[in-house]
Amino acid sequence: MPDLPAIRIAFLLFPDVTQLDLTGPAQVLSRLGNATIDLVAATRDPVATDAGFALLPTATFEDAVQPDILCIPGGFGVTDASEDAAAMAWVRSAAADAIWVTSVCTGALLLGAAGLLRGYRATTHWAQHHHLAAFGAIPVHERVVFDRNRVTGGGVTAGIDFGLALTAAIRGEDHARLVQLSLEYDPAPPFDAGSPERADAATLARYQALAARLAPDRDERTRALAARMPTD
Amino acid sequence: MPDLPAIRIAFLLFPDVTQLDLTGPAQVLSRLGNATIDLVAATRDPVATDAGFALLPTATFEDAVQPDILCIPGGFGVTDASEDAAAMAWVRSAAADAIWVTSVCTGALLLGAAGLLRGYRATTHWAQHHHLAAFGAIPVHERVVFDRNRVTGGGVTAGIDFGLALTAAIRGEDHARLVQLSLEYDPAPPFDAGSPERADAATLARYQALAARLAPDRDERTRALAARMPTD
Repeated sequence: MPDLPAIRIAFLLFPDVTQLDLTGPAQVLSRLGNATIDLVAATRDPVATDAGFALLPTATFEDAVQPDILCIPGGFGVTDASEDAAAMAWVRSAAADAIWVTSVCTGALLLGAAGLLRGYRATTHWAQHHHLAAFGAIPVHERVVFDRNRVTGGGVTAGIDFGLALTAAIRGEDHARLVQLSLEYDPAPPFDAGSPERADAATLARYQALAARLAPDRDERTRALAARMPTD
Repeated sequence: MPDLPAIRIAFLLFPDVTQLDLTGPAQVLSRLGNATIDLVAATRDPVATDAGFALLPTATFEDAVQPDILCIPGGFGVTDASEDAAAMAWVRSAAADAIWVTSVCTGALLLGAAGLLRGYRATTHWAQHHHLAAFGAIPVHERVVFDRNRVTGGGVTAGIDFGLALTAAIRGEDHARLVQLSLEYDPAPPFDAGSPERADAATLARYQALAARLAPDRDERTRALAARMPTD
Protein backbone atom coordinates (compact mmCIF):
# COMPACT_ATOMS: atom_id res chain seq x y z
CA MET A 1 0.00 0.00 0.00
CA PRO A 2 2.62 2.54 -1.09
CA ASP A 3 -0.02 5.26 -1.67
CA LEU A 4 -0.48 5.66 2.08
CA PRO A 5 1.70 8.22 3.88
CA ALA A 6 4.82 6.66 5.39
CA ILE A 7 4.72 5.97 9.10
CA ARG A 8 7.54 4.98 11.41
CA ILE A 9 6.95 2.97 14.60
CA ALA A 10 9.67 2.51 17.22
CA PHE A 11 9.52 0.03 20.08
CA LEU A 12 11.91 0.30 23.00
CA LEU A 13 13.64 -3.08 23.31
CA PHE A 14 15.18 -4.08 26.65
CA PRO A 15 16.31 -7.30 28.35
CA ASP A 16 13.57 -9.49 29.83
CA VAL A 17 10.83 -7.77 27.85
CA THR A 18 7.62 -9.81 27.63
CA GLN A 19 8.14 -10.39 23.95
CA LEU A 20 4.44 -10.59 23.00
CA ASP A 21 3.96 -7.08 24.43
CA LEU A 22 6.12 -5.99 21.50
CA THR A 23 5.55 -8.62 18.82
CA GLY A 24 1.72 -8.49 19.08
CA PRO A 25 1.31 -4.78 18.35
CA ALA A 26 4.31 -4.87 15.97
CA GLN A 27 2.47 -7.46 13.86
CA VAL A 28 -0.66 -5.33 13.72
CA LEU A 29 1.11 -2.02 13.13
CA SER A 30 3.38 -3.51 10.45
CA ARG A 31 0.17 -3.74 8.42
CA LEU A 32 -0.60 -0.03 8.65
CA GLY A 33 0.71 0.16 5.08
CA ASN A 34 3.96 1.93 4.18
CA ALA A 35 5.06 1.35 7.77
CA THR A 36 8.55 0.83 9.18
CA ILE A 37 9.10 -0.97 12.48
CA ASP A 38 12.20 -0.14 14.53
CA LEU A 39 13.34 -2.00 17.62
CA VAL A 40 15.55 0.42 19.51
CA ALA A 41 18.07 -0.60 22.16
CA ALA A 42 21.36 0.48 23.68
CA THR A 43 23.37 -1.50 21.11
CA ARG A 44 22.63 -3.76 18.12
CA ASP A 45 23.45 -6.87 20.15
CA PRO A 46 20.61 -9.41 20.48
CA VAL A 47 18.33 -8.66 23.43
CA ALA A 48 17.08 -11.62 25.48
CA THR A 49 13.32 -11.78 25.97
CA ASP A 50 11.30 -13.50 28.68
CA ALA A 51 10.48 -16.35 26.30
CA GLY A 52 14.02 -17.66 25.99
CA PHE A 53 14.91 -16.28 22.58
CA ALA A 54 16.38 -12.95 21.53
CA LEU A 55 15.13 -10.10 19.40
CA LEU A 56 17.56 -8.18 17.24
CA PRO A 57 17.54 -4.37 17.53
CA THR A 58 17.28 -2.46 14.27
CA ALA A 59 18.62 0.80 15.73
CA THR A 60 20.35 2.22 18.80
CA PHE A 61 19.56 5.17 21.03
CA GLU A 62 22.28 7.07 19.14
CA ASP A 63 21.16 6.40 15.57
CA ALA A 64 17.40 5.76 15.77
CA VAL A 65 15.28 7.85 13.44
CA GLN A 66 12.56 9.95 15.13
CA PRO A 67 9.42 7.77 15.19
CA ASP A 68 5.84 8.82 14.47
CA ILE A 69 4.67 6.23 17.00
CA LEU A 70 6.68 5.46 20.11
CA CYS A 71 5.64 2.25 21.87
CA ILE A 72 6.97 0.90 25.17
CA PRO A 73 6.33 -2.80 25.87
CA GLY A 74 6.40 -4.23 29.39
CA GLY A 75 7.56 -7.26 31.30
CA PHE A 76 9.71 -7.93 34.34
CA GLY A 77 12.59 -6.09 32.62
CA VAL A 78 10.71 -2.80 32.55
CA THR A 79 11.86 -1.89 36.06
CA ASP A 80 15.54 -2.14 35.09
CA ALA A 81 14.82 -0.23 31.88
CA SER A 82 13.09 2.52 33.86
CA GLU A 83 16.22 2.85 36.02
CA ASP A 84 18.46 3.08 32.92
CA ALA A 85 19.37 6.71 32.22
CA ALA A 86 20.24 6.14 28.54
CA ALA A 87 16.97 4.35 27.80
CA MET A 88 14.95 7.00 29.60
CA ALA A 89 16.75 9.85 27.84
CA TRP A 90 15.94 8.31 24.47
CA VAL A 91 12.30 7.70 25.44
CA ARG A 92 11.84 11.30 26.59
CA SER A 93 13.50 12.65 23.46
CA ALA A 94 11.51 10.39 21.09
CA ALA A 95 8.26 11.13 22.92
CA ALA A 96 8.76 14.88 22.61
CA ASP A 97 8.37 14.77 18.81
CA ALA A 98 6.28 11.61 18.31
CA ILE A 99 2.72 11.91 17.02
CA TRP A 100 1.64 9.04 19.30
CA VAL A 101 3.22 8.11 22.64
CA THR A 102 2.07 4.63 23.59
CA SER A 103 2.59 1.58 25.75
CA VAL A 104 1.41 -1.98 26.16
CA CYS A 105 1.26 -3.83 29.48
CA THR A 106 3.68 -2.52 32.11
CA GLY A 107 5.35 -0.33 29.52
CA ALA A 108 2.99 2.29 30.99
CA LEU A 109 5.06 2.27 34.19
CA LEU A 110 8.14 3.28 32.17
CA LEU A 111 6.18 6.07 30.48
CA GLY A 112 5.09 7.06 33.96
CA ALA A 113 8.66 7.01 35.28
CA ALA A 114 9.60 9.30 32.38
CA GLY A 115 6.94 11.76 33.55
CA LEU A 116 4.92 11.18 30.38
CA LEU A 117 1.60 10.09 31.89
CA ARG A 118 1.07 12.97 34.33
CA GLY A 119 -2.53 14.12 33.89
CA TYR A 120 -3.34 11.47 31.29
CA ARG A 121 -5.93 8.71 31.50
CA ALA A 122 -4.04 5.41 31.21
CA THR A 123 -4.09 1.66 31.77
CA THR A 124 -1.54 -1.11 32.27
CA HIS A 125 -1.37 -4.82 33.19
CA TRP A 126 -4.05 -5.51 35.82
CA ALA A 127 -1.50 -6.68 38.40
CA GLN A 128 0.44 -3.38 38.28
CA HIS A 129 -2.53 -1.06 37.77
CA HIS A 130 -2.30 0.21 41.36
CA HIS A 131 0.94 2.02 40.51
CA LEU A 132 -0.51 4.32 37.85
CA ALA A 133 -1.77 6.99 40.23
CA ALA A 134 1.67 7.47 41.81
CA PHE A 135 2.93 8.52 38.36
CA GLY A 136 0.24 11.19 38.16
CA ALA A 137 -1.83 9.21 35.66
CA ILE A 138 -5.60 8.86 35.87
CA PRO A 139 -6.08 5.07 36.16
CA VAL A 140 -8.72 3.61 33.83
CA HIS A 141 -9.83 -0.03 33.78
CA GLU A 142 -10.23 -0.46 30.02
CA ARG A 143 -8.38 -2.65 27.56
CA VAL A 144 -7.15 0.29 25.45
CA VAL A 145 -7.17 3.91 26.62
CA PHE A 146 -6.80 6.96 24.38
CA ASP A 147 -6.14 10.40 25.91
CA ARG A 148 -4.96 13.01 23.43
CA ASN A 149 -1.81 11.45 21.91
CA ARG A 150 -1.24 8.93 24.69
CA VAL A 151 -2.53 5.41 24.01
CA THR A 152 -2.03 2.69 26.60
CA GLY A 153 -3.02 -0.96 26.44
CA GLY A 154 -3.62 -3.50 29.21
CA GLY A 155 -1.56 -6.62 29.82
CA VAL A 156 0.30 -8.52 27.08
CA THR A 157 -2.45 -9.71 24.70
CA ALA A 158 -4.18 -6.31 24.95
CA GLY A 159 -1.43 -5.18 22.58
CA ILE A 160 -3.39 -6.70 19.69
CA ASP A 161 -6.56 -4.77 20.54
CA PHE A 162 -4.34 -1.70 21.07
CA GLY A 163 -2.77 -2.15 17.63
CA LEU A 164 -6.12 -2.42 15.90
CA ALA A 165 -7.56 0.60 17.73
CA LEU A 166 -4.50 2.66 16.81
CA THR A 167 -4.70 1.42 13.21
CA ALA A 168 -8.30 2.65 13.05
CA ALA A 169 -7.30 6.04 14.47
CA ILE A 170 -4.51 6.46 11.90
CA ARG A 171 -5.77 4.73 8.72
CA GLY A 172 -9.51 4.48 9.38
CA GLU A 173 -11.82 1.68 10.43
CA ASP A 174 -11.95 0.02 7.00
CA HIS A 175 -8.19 -0.48 7.06
CA ALA A 176 -8.35 -1.81 10.63
CA ARG A 177 -11.01 -4.34 9.59
CA LEU A 178 -8.78 -5.48 6.73
CA VAL A 179 -5.87 -6.02 9.13
CA GLN A 180 -8.13 -7.84 11.60
CA LEU A 181 -9.33 -10.20 8.87
CA SER A 182 -5.77 -10.82 7.66
CA LEU A 183 -4.77 -11.80 11.22
CA GLU A 184 -7.93 -13.93 11.63
CA TYR A 185 -8.52 -12.08 14.88
CA ASP A 186 -11.72 -13.77 15.96
CA PRO A 187 -10.50 -14.83 19.39
CA ALA A 188 -11.89 -17.89 21.15
CA PRO A 189 -10.14 -18.26 24.50
CA PRO A 190 -10.59 -21.82 25.75
CA PHE A 191 -11.15 -20.54 29.30
CA ASP A 192 -12.67 -17.47 30.93
CA ALA A 193 -9.76 -16.50 33.16
CA GLY A 194 -8.20 -13.53 31.40
CA SER A 195 -8.86 -10.83 33.98
CA PRO A 196 -8.79 -10.71 37.79
CA GLU A 197 -12.58 -10.20 37.77
CA ARG A 198 -13.16 -13.36 35.73
CA ALA A 199 -10.49 -15.67 37.09
CA ASP A 200 -11.33 -17.85 40.06
CA ALA A 201 -9.78 -17.04 43.44
CA ALA A 202 -7.33 -19.94 43.36
CA THR A 203 -5.91 -18.88 39.97
CA LEU A 204 -5.58 -15.30 41.18
CA ALA A 205 -3.76 -16.40 44.34
CA ARG A 206 -1.38 -18.59 42.33
CA TYR A 207 -0.59 -15.68 40.01
CA GLN A 208 0.12 -13.31 42.90
CA ALA A 209 2.40 -15.84 44.61
CA LEU A 210 4.28 -16.51 41.37
CA ALA A 211 4.79 -12.81 40.61
CA ALA A 212 5.98 -12.12 44.16
CA ARG A 213 8.51 -14.93 43.86
CA LEU A 214 9.77 -13.81 40.42
CA ALA A 215 10.08 -10.10 41.27
CA PRO A 216 9.97 -9.68 45.05
CA ASP A 217 11.22 -6.07 44.99
CA ARG A 218 9.14 -4.79 42.08
CA ASP A 219 6.56 -2.85 44.09
CA GLU A 220 9.24 -1.10 46.11
CA ARG A 221 11.33 -0.22 43.06
CA THR A 222 8.28 1.03 41.16
CA ARG A 223 7.32 3.31 44.07
CA ALA A 224 10.89 4.64 44.09
CA LEU A 225 10.64 5.41 40.37
CA ALA A 226 7.43 7.35 40.95
CA ALA A 227 9.10 9.31 43.76
CA ARG A 228 11.88 10.53 41.47
CA MET A 229 9.82 11.10 38.31
CA PRO A 230 10.95 14.23 36.39
CA THR A 231 8.77 17.23 37.08
CA ASP A 232 9.14 19.06 33.76
CA MET B 1 8.07 -24.02 38.31
CA PRO B 2 11.05 -26.39 38.30
CA ASP B 3 8.98 -29.23 39.78
CA LEU B 4 7.19 -29.72 36.45
CA PRO B 5 8.73 -32.17 33.97
CA ALA B 6 10.96 -30.42 31.44
CA ILE B 7 9.48 -29.79 28.01
CA ARG B 8 11.21 -28.64 24.85
CA ILE B 9 9.36 -26.73 22.13
CA ALA B 10 10.91 -26.12 18.70
CA PHE B 11 9.57 -23.69 16.13
CA LEU B 12 10.72 -23.85 12.53
CA LEU B 13 12.01 -20.36 11.65
CA PHE B 14 12.15 -19.31 7.99
CA PRO B 15 12.39 -16.04 6.04
CA ASP B 16 9.15 -14.05 5.69
CA VAL B 17 7.44 -15.90 8.51
CA THR B 18 4.40 -14.08 9.90
CA GLN B 19 6.20 -13.43 13.16
CA LEU B 20 3.09 -13.45 15.38
CA ASP B 21 2.35 -17.02 14.18
CA LEU B 22 5.49 -17.91 16.12
CA THR B 23 5.77 -15.28 18.86
CA GLY B 24 2.14 -15.66 20.00
CA PRO B 25 2.25 -19.38 20.78
CA ALA B 26 5.89 -19.08 21.91
CA GLN B 27 4.80 -16.60 24.58
CA VAL B 28 2.06 -18.92 25.82
CA LEU B 29 4.14 -22.10 25.69
CA SER B 30 7.13 -20.43 27.36
CA ARG B 31 4.88 -20.38 30.44
CA LEU B 32 4.31 -24.14 30.46
CA GLY B 33 6.84 -24.20 33.30
CA ASN B 34 10.30 -25.76 32.94
CA ALA B 35 9.98 -25.15 29.19
CA THR B 36 12.69 -24.42 26.61
CA ILE B 37 11.87 -22.63 23.37
CA ASP B 38 14.06 -23.28 20.32
CA LEU B 39 13.88 -21.39 17.04
CA VAL B 40 15.39 -23.68 14.45
CA ALA B 41 16.69 -22.53 11.06
CA ALA B 42 19.26 -23.42 8.43
CA THR B 43 21.95 -21.29 10.14
CA ARG B 44 22.22 -19.04 13.21
CA ASP B 45 22.04 -15.90 11.07
CA PRO B 46 19.11 -13.57 11.82
CA VAL B 47 15.96 -14.49 9.90
CA ALA B 48 13.87 -11.65 8.48
CA THR B 49 10.18 -11.73 9.40
CA ASP B 50 7.22 -10.17 7.62
CA ALA B 51 7.14 -7.35 10.18
CA GLY B 52 10.45 -5.79 9.20
CA PHE B 53 12.61 -7.09 12.02
CA ALA B 54 14.55 -10.31 12.43
CA LEU B 55 14.36 -13.22 14.83
CA LEU B 56 17.52 -14.95 15.93
CA PRO B 57 17.65 -18.75 15.62
CA THR B 58 18.72 -20.64 18.73
CA ALA B 59 19.65 -23.82 16.84
CA THR B 60 20.22 -25.16 13.34
CA PHE B 61 18.86 -28.19 11.50
CA GLU B 62 22.21 -29.88 12.25
CA ASP B 63 22.41 -29.24 15.99
CA ALA B 64 18.81 -28.85 17.19
CA VAL B 65 17.83 -31.05 20.11
CA GLN B 66 14.83 -33.33 19.50
CA PRO B 67 11.74 -31.36 20.61
CA ASP B 68 8.75 -32.64 22.57
CA ILE B 69 6.57 -30.16 20.68
CA LEU B 70 7.26 -29.29 17.06
CA CYS B 71 5.44 -26.18 15.84
CA ILE B 72 5.38 -24.77 12.30
CA PRO B 73 4.30 -21.15 11.93
CA GLY B 74 2.99 -19.73 8.65
CA GLY B 75 3.18 -16.68 6.47
CA PHE B 76 4.02 -15.91 2.87
CA GLY B 77 7.44 -17.53 3.41
CA VAL B 78 5.93 -20.94 4.12
CA THR B 79 5.78 -21.82 0.42
CA ASP B 80 9.53 -21.30 -0.02
CA ALA B 81 10.16 -23.23 3.21
CA SER B 82 8.00 -26.10 1.97
CA GLU B 83 10.15 -26.26 -1.18
CA ASP B 84 13.37 -26.31 0.88
CA ALA B 85 14.69 -29.86 1.16
CA ALA B 86 16.82 -29.20 4.26
CA ALA B 87 13.94 -27.60 6.16
CA MET B 88 11.57 -30.40 5.20
CA ALA B 89 14.07 -33.11 6.14
CA TRP B 90 14.44 -31.58 9.60
CA VAL B 91 10.67 -31.23 10.02
CA ARG B 92 10.06 -34.86 9.08
CA SER B 93 12.83 -36.06 11.38
CA ALA B 94 11.71 -33.90 14.34
CA ALA B 95 8.06 -34.88 13.80
CA ALA B 96 8.88 -38.59 13.87
CA ASP B 97 9.91 -38.45 17.53
CA ALA B 98 7.93 -35.43 18.80
CA ILE B 99 5.12 -35.95 21.28
CA TRP B 100 3.09 -33.18 19.61
CA VAL B 101 3.29 -32.19 15.93
CA THR B 102 1.65 -28.81 15.51
CA SER B 103 1.16 -25.75 13.35
CA VAL B 104 -0.32 -22.27 13.45
CA CYS B 105 -1.81 -20.48 10.44
CA THR B 106 -0.43 -21.66 7.08
CA GLY B 107 2.22 -23.70 8.86
CA ALA B 108 -0.34 -26.48 8.33
CA LEU B 109 0.42 -26.38 4.60
CA LEU B 110 4.08 -27.16 5.33
CA LEU B 111 3.06 -30.05 7.59
CA GLY B 112 0.83 -31.14 4.72
CA ALA B 113 3.67 -30.89 2.20
CA ALA B 114 5.74 -33.08 4.53
CA GLY B 115 3.00 -35.72 4.38
CA LEU B 116 2.24 -35.24 8.08
CA LEU B 117 -1.46 -34.40 7.88
CA ARG B 118 -2.66 -37.32 5.78
CA GLY B 119 -5.76 -38.70 7.48
CA TYR B 120 -5.74 -36.06 10.23
CA ARG B 121 -8.40 -33.47 11.01
CA ALA B 122 -6.76 -30.06 10.64
CA THR B 123 -7.25 -26.34 10.18
CA THR B 124 -5.24 -23.41 8.82
CA HIS B 125 -5.65 -19.70 7.95
CA TRP B 126 -9.13 -19.23 6.47
CA ALA B 127 -7.78 -17.92 3.16
CA GLN B 128 -5.73 -21.10 2.52
CA HIS B 129 -8.16 -23.58 4.05
CA HIS B 130 -9.18 -24.89 0.60
CA HIS B 131 -5.72 -26.49 0.19
CA LEU B 132 -5.97 -28.84 3.19
CA ALA B 133 -7.84 -31.61 1.39
CA ALA B 134 -5.18 -31.89 -1.33
CA PHE B 135 -2.69 -32.82 1.40
CA GLY B 136 -4.96 -35.64 2.52
CA ALA B 137 -6.09 -33.78 5.64
CA ILE B 138 -9.70 -33.66 6.81
CA PRO B 139 -10.48 -29.92 6.77
CA VAL B 140 -12.16 -28.59 9.91
CA HIS B 141 -13.42 -25.03 10.41
CA GLU B 142 -12.45 -24.59 14.05
CA ARG B 143 -9.97 -22.25 15.70
CA VAL B 144 -7.88 -25.08 17.18
CA VAL B 145 -8.10 -28.71 16.06
CA PHE B 146 -6.73 -31.70 17.97
CA ASP B 147 -6.47 -35.11 16.27
CA ARG B 148 -4.30 -37.63 18.12
CA ASN B 149 -0.91 -35.84 18.40
CA ARG B 150 -1.56 -33.31 15.63
CA VAL B 151 -2.72 -29.88 16.79
CA THR B 152 -3.39 -27.16 14.24
CA GLY B 153 -4.47 -23.57 14.78
CA GLY B 154 -6.20 -21.12 12.45
CA GLY B 155 -4.71 -17.88 11.17
CA VAL B 156 -2.10 -15.83 13.08
CA THR B 157 -3.86 -14.79 16.31
CA ALA B 158 -5.35 -18.29 16.66
CA GLY B 159 -1.87 -19.22 17.85
CA ILE B 160 -2.71 -17.79 21.27
CA ASP B 161 -5.85 -19.93 21.61
CA PHE B 162 -3.79 -22.86 20.28
CA GLY B 163 -1.11 -22.27 22.90
CA LEU B 164 -3.61 -22.19 25.75
CA ALA B 165 -5.42 -25.31 24.53
CA LEU B 166 -2.12 -27.17 24.24
CA THR B 167 -1.08 -25.90 27.69
CA ALA B 168 -4.28 -27.36 29.13
CA ALA B 169 -3.64 -30.69 27.40
CA ILE B 170 -0.09 -30.90 28.77
CA ARG B 171 -0.21 -29.23 32.19
CA GLY B 172 -3.95 -29.23 32.95
CA GLU B 173 -6.66 -26.60 32.87
CA ASP B 174 -5.62 -24.91 36.12
CA HIS B 175 -2.19 -24.17 34.71
CA ALA B 176 -3.71 -22.89 31.45
CA ARG B 177 -5.97 -20.53 33.41
CA LEU B 178 -2.92 -19.20 35.28
CA VAL B 179 -1.13 -18.50 32.00
CA GLN B 180 -4.24 -16.87 30.54
CA LEU B 181 -4.52 -14.56 33.56
CA SER B 182 -0.81 -13.69 33.40
CA LEU B 183 -1.24 -12.70 29.73
CA GLU B 184 -4.46 -10.78 30.52
CA TYR B 185 -6.06 -12.71 27.69
CA ASP B 186 -9.55 -11.24 27.86
CA PRO B 187 -9.74 -10.13 24.23
CA ALA B 188 -11.86 -7.19 23.14
CA PRO B 189 -11.50 -6.76 19.38
CA PRO B 190 -12.58 -3.25 18.43
CA PHE B 191 -14.33 -4.59 15.29
CA ASP B 192 -16.13 -7.77 14.30
CA ALA B 193 -14.19 -8.60 11.16
CA GLY B 194 -11.90 -11.43 12.20
CA SER B 195 -13.27 -14.21 10.00
CA PRO B 196 -14.59 -14.37 6.44
CA GLU B 197 -18.07 -15.13 7.81
CA ARG B 198 -18.07 -11.99 9.96
CA ALA B 199 -16.22 -9.52 7.76
CA ASP B 200 -18.25 -7.44 5.31
CA ALA B 201 -17.97 -8.21 1.60
CA ALA B 202 -15.84 -5.15 0.83
CA THR B 203 -13.22 -6.07 3.44
CA LEU B 204 -13.15 -9.63 2.15
CA ALA B 205 -12.66 -8.46 -1.44
CA ARG B 206 -9.87 -6.09 -0.41
CA TYR B 207 -8.09 -8.91 1.40
CA GLN B 208 -8.34 -11.27 -1.57
CA ALA B 209 -7.02 -8.62 -3.95
CA LEU B 210 -4.13 -7.78 -1.63
CA ALA B 211 -3.14 -11.44 -1.13
CA ALA B 212 -3.29 -12.10 -4.87
CA ARG B 213 -1.00 -9.13 -5.48
CA LEU B 214 1.49 -10.11 -2.75
CA ALA B 215 1.71 -13.82 -3.69
CA PRO B 216 0.24 -14.30 -7.18
CA ASP B 217 1.66 -17.82 -7.63
CA ARG B 218 0.89 -19.19 -4.17
CA ASP B 219 -2.12 -21.31 -5.14
CA GLU B 220 -0.26 -22.92 -8.02
CA ARG B 221 2.84 -23.62 -5.93
CA THR B 222 0.78 -25.05 -3.07
CA ARG B 223 -1.02 -27.41 -5.47
CA ALA B 224 2.37 -28.52 -6.81
CA LEU B 225 3.55 -29.23 -3.24
CA ALA B 226 0.47 -31.39 -2.65
CA ALA B 227 1.12 -33.28 -5.88
CA ARG B 228 4.62 -34.29 -4.78
CA MET B 229 3.90 -34.92 -1.11
CA PRO B 230 5.86 -37.94 0.24
CA THR B 231 3.79 -41.10 0.35
CA ASP B 232 5.44 -42.84 3.31
